[in-house]
Amino acid sequence: MSLALLINGRAPADPSLALSAEDRGLHYGDGLFETALIDAGKVRFLQSHLDRLFSGCERLGLPVPERTQLLNEITNVVGEVQVGVLKIVLTRGVGDRGYRPARAAQTTRIVALYPHTKRPPEAVTARWCETRLGRNARLAGMKHLNRLEQVLAQQEWDDPLIGEGLMLDTEGELVCATASNVFIVREAVLATPDLRFCGVEGVMRSQVLRAAAQLGLAVNEEPLWPHDVEMASEVFLTSAVRGIRPIAALDSLRWNASPIASKLSAALQL
Amino acid sequence: MSLALLINGRAPADPSLALSAEDRGLHYGDGLFETALIDAGKVRFLQSHLDRLFSGCERLGLPVPERTQLLNEITNVVGEVQVGVLKIVLTRGVGDRGYRPARAAQTTRIVALYPHTKRPPEAVTARWCETRLGRNARLAGMKHLNRLEQVLAQQEWDDPLIGEGLMLDTEGELVCATASNVFIVREAVLATPDLRFCGVEGVMRSQVLRAAAQLGLAVNEEPLWPHDVEMASEVFLTSAVRGIRPIAALDSLRWNASPIASKLSAALQL
Repeated sequence: MSLALLINGRAPADPSLALSAEDRGLHYGDGLFETALIDAGKVRFLQSHLDRLFSGCERLGLPVPERTQLLNEITNVVGEVQVGVLKIVLTRGVGDRGYRPARAAQTTRIVALYPHTKRPPEAVTARWCETRLGRNARLAGMKHLNRLEQVLAQQEWDDPLIGEGLMLDTEGELVCATASNVFIVREAVLATPDLRFCGVEGVMRSQVLRAAAQLGLAVNEEPLWPHDVEMASEVFLTSAVRGIRPIAALDSLRWNASPIASKLSAALQL
Repeated sequence: MSLALLINGRAPADPSLALSAEDRGLHYGDGLFETALIDAGKVRFLQSHLDRLFSGCERLGLPVPERTQLLNEITNVVGEVQVGVLKIVLTRGVGDRGYRPARAAQTTRIVALYPHTKRPPEAVTARWCETRLGRNARLAGMKHLNRLEQVLAQQEWDDPLIGEGLMLDTEGELVCATASNVFIVREAVLATPDLRFCGVEGVMRSQVLRAAAQLGLAVNEEPLWPHDVEMASEVFLTSAVRGIRPIAALDSLRWNASPIASKLSAALQL
């Protein structure tokens, strides 16, 4: 359960009875979300989260929220909390039956605080997911509310020792993990899937790309395949909430060291 | 707005404040829906709607609702209404943050009645949509809540004279219209896209396939392309709510008669 919640700027009397049964976020997944880490009382990379959210609004034709208002709501919800997770959900609001949005959509804006325990980044045991990601450039990169593929992928395993699952698209290209982006290191070059067909352009992914360039590391966004993971000297996951986590094991593959991941974590003060 | 609404069997005091802000239907589109026509006080093809809903539950790993309970809720919501639309939404219920469903999901069940004016089936002017459908066999056929592609497609036009838009998948195959299935007639053979990669297996589509077989019409579910539409002697749309509607115009194409559509409408008493 969330610790604090505002809907359109107000705290509902009862968060379990807060939303309209006719919200288009529910009926069609017609909206976007952000999940950010609160650390030392600050929302980390807030600017990047808001930039992605606003760019998603433009792509979906959703009214862009008023920045100052949204920032006030975030400040209000975060309060004095030092460590937590901030979630923002934006939907096209209440609508009549039918896919077509009303001309003057009144968006629904949910700002919620969730508990979180910050742990030192630990190496992850990962698996390959059987659930594939459909390709659609029209939706690629956005953190929209159509997330059934990720739900089905996470349903594939319940071994608590497995921390993440890598996902391929329907053509077999590597895209991401269920809730993280993925990077590999090959001959001292950093590479990550280019997400031209699917996947979310993660905020931590962008930070890592920027930090790598500043550190003088060669870095490519390009099509990658399972073979590239198998040949990599290092594989790591990125997420705004979980930071940078090296993969230590993937089926029969093992990686013992993650010098690039460590260098990037240090550069980003994770 | 809906005329009557039950959530988990209860009428909320205020339908605009009825749902949890943490429902997984909202956060991930993690659920299914049905939209059925109420005509002469009866829900038409109710059995087929429930069969599809329950089959979707099995595919998504959602608990299948208790049939008698759901039927009672439908009876309760429909009341004495003669003509209307029944909408059922089923989600994986309230969950914690994260894609992974809780082991014991308590589904959210929404049963709602919407107004509807029954019109004699009129021929439709249609267009080709630019928005494509991503391919993912894992989700194909289900009427799930991930419907952003349909929302974007219906946003493409606002000319009220255009009644529907035909949609291709990312490889250019014909799939459906934004809120209907599509059939073509070619040399007296009826054909409809096979939906192996995407699209919804419409209840009216199934009824038409069954009625066609009973009438002795040759009928195929197969891959179709825009070229097949251009060569067709007849093209029509099917929807549980709108029935069978011939396409009269599509860009520069014109069709003047729809004998097969008329025969099927009569056979199905639409």
